[in-house]
Amino acid sequence: MTETAAPQVGIVMGSDSDWPVMEDAATALEEFGIAHEVDVVSAHRMPEEMINYGREAAGRGLRVIIAGAGGAAHLPGMLASVTPLPVIGVPVPLRHLDGMDSLLSIVQMPAGVPVATVSVAGARNAGLLAARILGAGSDDAAAAVRERMATFQEELRAAAEKKGA
Amino acid sequence: MTETAAPQVGIVMGSDSDWPVMEDAATALEEFGIAHEVDVVSAHRMPEEMINYGREAAGRGLRVIIAGAGGAAHLPGMLASVTPLPVIGVPVPLRHLDGMDSLLSIVQMPAGVPVATVSVAGARNAGLLAARILGAGSDDAAAAVRERMATFQEELRAAAEKKGA
Amino acid sequence: MTETAAPQVGIVMGSDSDWPVMEDAATALEEFGIAHEVDVVSAHRMPEEMINYGREAAGRGLRVIIAGAGGAAHLPGMLASVTPLPVIGVPVPLRHLDGMDSLLSIVQMPAGVPVATVSVAGARNAGLLAARILGAGSDDAAAAVRERMATFQEELRAAAEKKGA
Amino acid sequence: MTETAAPQVGIVMGSDSDWPVMEDAATALEEFGIAHEVDVVSAHRMPEEMINYGREAAGRGLRVIIAGAGGAAHLPGMLASVTPLPVIGVPVPLRHLDGMDSLLSIVQMPAGVPVATVSVAGARNAGLLAARILGAGSDDAAAAVRERMATFQEELRAAAEKKGA
Amino acid sequence: MTETAAPQVGIVMGSDSDWPVMEDAATALEEFGIAHEVDVVSAHRMPEEMINYGREAAGRGLRVIIAGAGGAAHLPGMLASVTPLPVIGVPVPLRHLDGMDSLLSIVQMPAGVPVATVSVAGARNAGLLAARILGAGSDDAAAAVRERMATFQEELRAAAEKKGA
Amino acid sequence: MTETAAPQVGIVMGSDSDWPVMEDAATALEEFGIAHEVDVVSAHRMPEEMINYGREAAGRGLRVIIAGAGGAAHLPGMLASVTPLPVIGVPVPLRHLDGMDSLLSIVQMPAGVPVATVSVAGARNAGLLAARILGAGSDDAAAAVRERMATFQEELRAAAEKKGA
Amino acid sequence: MTETAAPQVGIVMGSDSDWPVMEDAATALEEFGIAHEVDVVSAHRMPEEMINYGREAAGRGLRVIIAGAGGAAHLPGMLASVTPLPVIGVPVPLRHLDGMDSLLSIVQMPAGVPVATVSVAGARNAGLLAARILGAGSDDAAAAVRERMATFQEELRAAAEKKGA
Amino acid sequence: MTETAAPQVGIVMGSDSDWPVMEDAATALEEFGIAHEVDVVSAHRMPEEMINYGREAAGRGLRVIIAGAGGAAHLPGMLASVTPLPVIGVPVPLRHLDGMDSLLSIVQMPAGVPVATVSVAGARNAGLLAARILGAGSDDAAAAVRERMATFQEELRAAAEKKGA
Repeated sequence: MTETAAPQVGIVMGSDSDWPVMEDAATALEEFGIAHEVDVVSAHRMPEEMINYGREAAGRGLRVIIAGAGGAAHLPGMLASVTPLPVIGVPVPLRHLDGMDSLLSIVQMPAGVPVATVSVAGARNAGLLAARILGAGSDDAAAAVRERMATFQEELRAAAEKKGA
Repeated sequence: MTETAAPQVGIVMGSDSDWPVMEDAATALEEFGIAHEVDVVSAHRMPEEMINYGREAAGRGLRVIIAGAGGAAHLPGMLASVTPLPVIGVPVPLRHLDGMDSLLSIVQMPAGVPVATVSVAGARNAGLLAARILGAGSDDAAAAVRERMATFQEELRAAAEKKGA
Repeated sequence: MTETAAPQVGIVMGSDSDWPVMEDAATALEEFGIAHEVDVVSAHRMPEEMINYGREAAGRGLRVIIAGAGGAAHLPGMLASVTPLPVIGVPVPLRHLDGMDSLLSIVQMPAGVPVATVSVAGARNAGLLAARILGAGSDDAAAAVRERMATFQEELRAAAEKKGA
Repeated sequence: MTETAAPQVGIVMGSDSDWPVMEDAATALEEFGIAHEVDVVSAHRMPEEMINYGREAAGRGLRVIIAGAGGAAHLPGMLASVTPLPVIGVPVPLRHLDGMDSLLSIVQMPAGVPVATVSVAGARNAGLLAARILGAGSDDAAAAVRERMATFQEELRAAAEKKGA
Repeated sequence: MTETAAPQVGIVMGSDSDWPVMEDAATALEEFGIAHEVDVVSAHRMPEEMINYGREAAGRGLRVIIAGAGGAAHLPGMLASVTPLPVIGVPVPLRHLDGMDSLLSIVQMPAGVPVATVSVAGARNAGLLAARILGAGSDDAAAAVRERMATFQEELRAAAEKKGA
Repeated sequence: MTETAAPQVGIVMGSDSDWPVMEDAATALEEFGIAHEVDVVSAHRMPEEMINYGREAAGRGLRVIIAGAGGAAHLPGMLASVTPLPVIGVPVPLRHLDGMDSLLSIVQMPAGVPVATVSVAGARNAGLLAARILGAGSDDAAAAVRERMATFQEELRAAAEKKGA
Repeated sequence: MTETAAPQVGIVMGSDSDWPVMEDAATALEEFGIAHEVDVVSAHRMPEEMINYGREAAGRGLRVIIAGAGGAAHLPGMLASVTPLPVIGVPVPLRHLDGMDSLLSIVQMPAGVPVATVSVAGARNAGLLAARILGAGSDDAAAAVRERMATFQEELRAAAEKKGA
Repeated sequence: MTETAAPQVGIVMGSDSDWPVMEDAATALEEFGIAHEVDVVSAHRMPEEMINYGREAAGRGLRVIIAGAGGAAHLPGMLASVTPLPVIGVPVPLRHLDGMDSLLSIVQMPAGVPVATVSVAGARNAGLLAARILGAGSDDAAAAVRERMATFQEELRAAAEKKGA
C-alpha cells in the first residue's frame, strides 16, 4: 500500500483492517497532489518498528504523520512522542463502543505530546488537515497548496449551494 | 490580551472566561519564541467579526489559529470553514458535562472542514501543536522550531526520568 | 426542494443527506397549512450564505427557522446568533455516535443565544413546535393555528385511545 | 414567587429547589419587559394541578410556558401534552449525573408532543427563547420585542467585542 | 390486547409499537397464572386517561402496574404519582440512543414517587417482579405464587446447569 | 444498626460506608411504621453469608429486601437470585463515575432474576417502594399501609402546592 | 463443552449464548497447549453451584479462571470473591448498551476483590492473559509457556510487519 | 520511590502525580510480603526507556508489571506489547472525564496484547491481583502467597461481618 516520490505525509495505521477507513486520507492527499506513503505500523505488535518509524520520519523528509487506530488506540500518541512532526490522529471505530474508546484514547493526550485529532472515522479530514499544515509553510509549494485549498473550499461551497435552491 | 510583533499564531476564544484555560497555549508559544496574538472572538455573539477574523487571518500573516470554546463550541469549526489555515480546537470544560459537549462539538466536524482537536482543557498541547506545525515548514525558522522541539522533548524526557529511580 | 407563497417557516439543513430526516418537519407544517421554504445552507461549506440567510430571514417575512444538522452541528446555533427569530434545532444522527454529538452540539448553547432543541431525528416535532410558536401570536392566523393544534391533539388522543382497549 | 399584570409567560418548576437555576429565566424576561408568573407545579407530587395548569394556560392568556425540572424530568413534556402553547424545557442538574438524565428526559419527546429544550441549567436562554417566540408575532407588541432583541444582540456583540482587543 | 377475569396486574405502554417488547411481561404473568390486563395508555397523547387509569387502578382491584415506554419515558413515573400501587417501569429502546434515554427517564425519579425499574427491554423481568410482589402477600394466593416462584427458580437452575457439563 | 420486632423489610448494604445513603430507606419505613432490620452483607467479602441471608429471608418472615451497593454492585442481583422475595436495588454512587456503574450493575439483570431498581442514591424511594409492595397485599395490614400511602401522597401534594403560589 | 486432562484454566460463562464470544479464549489456550475446561456457571440462576465452582477451583488444580458474562455481569466478581486464584473477566456485549454495562459491572470491583478485566468481547485476550499468568511461574512448564509467548509475539510482529510495506 | 531485594513486581506510572493513587498497589504488596520496585516510566515522555523497561522486565526477574496511567493512558498497553509478563493496568482519573478516558484507553486493547485492567483508581486491587498471580505458581513461594490470600480473604470477611449485626 505504499506510494513513492519523496513523500511528505506518512499515513500509518495499526492494522490493515483500518484501510477502508484510512483510504480517505490518501484520496484527499491525492486530490491536492501531495506525495505520501502508506504503511501498517502497529504500536502493539511491532513497537520497536513503530518507534523507529517515528524517530526516522522527519529525517526521511516526512513533514506530517497521519495515524489511524481503533479501541485502545496508542499509535498516534506513541508516534507523537518520538517525532517533532505534527501527528494527526484518526479514531477508527471498531465493532464495539462505536469509536468512543478510539476517540478518547487518541485525543486525551497528556501535556507535552499533542495529537491533532479528527472525528471518528474522519480520515478525509486528516488528509485535508495535512494539506493545511503543508500550506502553512513559507515556500512556493506551501503557497501552491494554499491556493488549491482556496479552490477546494470554493468548490465545496459551490457544491453545497447547488444542493440548495 | 493581545501581543504584537508579526504574530504567526492567533489564539482566540469564545469568552474571556476561557482565558484561565487558554493561557497555557500562549505560555507554550512563548517558550518556543513564537509571536502570537490573543483575542476574544465569539462565534455566537459577534459572528461577522468571527467570520472576518477567519477570512483575514492568512492575509494578515497568521499561519495557525488556536481556538478555544466550551459547550456547543462552534468557534473552531466556524473559523476552519473560512480560512485555509490549520485550526487547532481546544475543548473548554464548562460547569456541566465536564467538557464532553465541548469535545464532541469541536472534533466531530464534517468531511471537508478539519479541526485539529486536542484534549479537554489541553491548551498547552494546542500551543505545542502549533509549534510542530510551524516546525514542519521548509525555511530556516521552521528548522529552528524543530530544533527547539527536539530540545523540548529531550527536556521532557529528562524531567520524567529524574522523577523515576 | 423549495416551496413558495410567503413562507413563514424556513427549513434548512447542513446537507441534502439530512433530507430524509428533515422531511418530517415539512410534512408537519403542511398538515397545518403553514407555508414554508426548504433549503440547504451549510454552516461549514457556505458560511457567508448561512450568515446572510439568518440575517435576512426576519426581513423576508420568515417567523421561525428550523435547522437540522449532524455531528459537530453548528448550523442551528450560528443561525440563532444572526437572527432575532426563534430557531429550532434538529439533531441529525450520523453514522457514528448515534446523534449524541449532534444533540450536545445543538442544545448546549451559551447564555444569550438560545436554540429550541428537539429530540435526535425529531424533525416532525420541530414542525409541530413551529406551529405552536406561530399559534402563540395574537392575530387571526395564530388563532386558526391554535384551533388546528387543538384538533391535532384530539386526533392524537383518539388514535392512541383506539389502540388501547 | 408569583408576579402579576397579565402574564404572557408562565415559569414553572418541579420543586422550589430549582429556583436558583430557574431564576435566570425570570431575569431575562424582566430585561425584555415581558410580564410573567412563577409557580411550583410538580408533575409527580401534584399531577392534577399540573394538568390543570397546562389545560388552562392558554385560556388564562399565557402564550409561552417555561418548565424546569431535574432527574426523570417529566414536567415540560407533560405540560406540552395538555397545552397547544409552545413549552420550553430547562434541564435542571441534580446531585448526580450532572443533568444528563434531566436533558434526555426532556428532549427525547415522542413525535406529536414537542418540547423546546435548552442547555443544562440554561434558564436564561429559556427566557430569551420565550422573548423570541413572543417577538415572532404579527402585532405591535411583537415588533417591540423584536426591536429589543436586536438591541440585546447588539449589546451582546459589543460586550464580547470589548473583551477582545 | 386486553385480557379479563379480575386482573391483578395492569400492563400498559405508551404506544402499541412497544408491544413486541412488552409482550414478554404478559407471557411471564401467564406462566404464573396471574390474571392481567393489557392497554395502551399514553402519558403524552392521552394524559387525562392516563391519570384516570392510575387513579382508578387500585380501586378496580389491580395490585401492580407494569408500564413500558421509550425515549422521554414519562408513563411509569406519572402513573406512580397517581396510584399507591407499586409501579414497575420497563425502558423500551427506541431507534436512537439504545434505551439509555428511556432508562434514565424512568429510573431517576425524585424522592417521594418510586418506580421499580428493570433493564432496557426487560419486560420479562417486569412480569416476574410483579409475581414476586404478589407473592410477598400474606394470603393463600401469595403463598401459591411463592411456591411457583420457587419451582420457577429451580427450573431456571436446572436448565442452566444442563447447559454446563 | 439492626432493629427488631418481626421485621418485614431487610435493608442490607455492601459496606457500612453506604449507610449515609441507605439511611433514607430506614427513615421512610419508619414513617410508615414498617418494622425492618438493617445489616451489612457484602456480596464480595462474605459471599456465603450473603447467600444465606437471601436463602433464609423469606423463611424468617421478611417480605421485601432493600439492597444498596456501589461500583460493580452485585449485592441486589445476587440476593434476587436466591430469594423469591422482591428485591429493591439502590445504586450507591462511589468516588468515581457518579453512580453510573452502580446503576448499570444493578438494573441490567438477565431475564429470570429481576431487581426493582431505583435512582442513584434513591434510598428514600426504595423505602417507599417497599411500603407500596407491602400495601399491595390483601390483608388488613396492607390496607393500613395503602391508607397511609394515600395520606403520604396527599401530604406530598400539599407541601408542593404550598411552595407554589 | 468440557475438555479434560488436568485442566489448568477454567473457562466459565453465565449462559451458553456467551459461547460464540468466549470460544476465542479456548482457542487461544489451545494454541498454547494449555489444558482447560469449559462450563456454564450462572451466578444468577445457579448461585450455589457458582460459589462451589469458585471454592473448589484451586483445590481441583485450576490455576486461573476466565469468566465471561453480559449486562449486570456478576459472575467474574462473585467467583473472585470465593477463590484465591486470579480471575479474568470478559465483558460480553448483549443486545443493548453494547457491552458498556458488562464492562462496568466487571471492572469496577471494590477494593479487596480484583478481577482482571479485558476488553468488550475480548475473550482471545483473556486466553492470552491466562497464558501469561501461567508463564509467570517458576517451574519448567512456566518457562515453556514464556518461550511460546515470545514466539507468539514474534509471529504477531511478523504478521503485522508483512501487512506493511 | 524504588524498593530493593529481588523485586517480583514492578510498579510503574506515567507521572509522579499518579503516586497518590498508585501507592495503594505498593501497600497491598507489602501486606503480602512481596518484593517490588516502583518507578516513573512515561510512555509519552521517555518512550525508549519505557520500551526498555518492558523488554528487560522478565530478564531482570520481574514476574508481574503493574502500570498506572491517566487520560490517553498508553503505558500499560505499550508495556504489554514488549513483555511476555502479565501486565496489570490501573486507570488513573485525571481532572476531567473522571477516569472514563483512562479506563477505555487501557482496557480496550486489540487481540494479541492483553492488559489485566482493574477499576478506576483501583491500585489496591492491582496489588492484590499481582499477589493472586504469584500465588498461581507451582512452587513453595506461590503456596505461601495462596495461604496468605486465604487468610486475607477470611480477614476481609470477618471485618465485613463485624460491621453487620
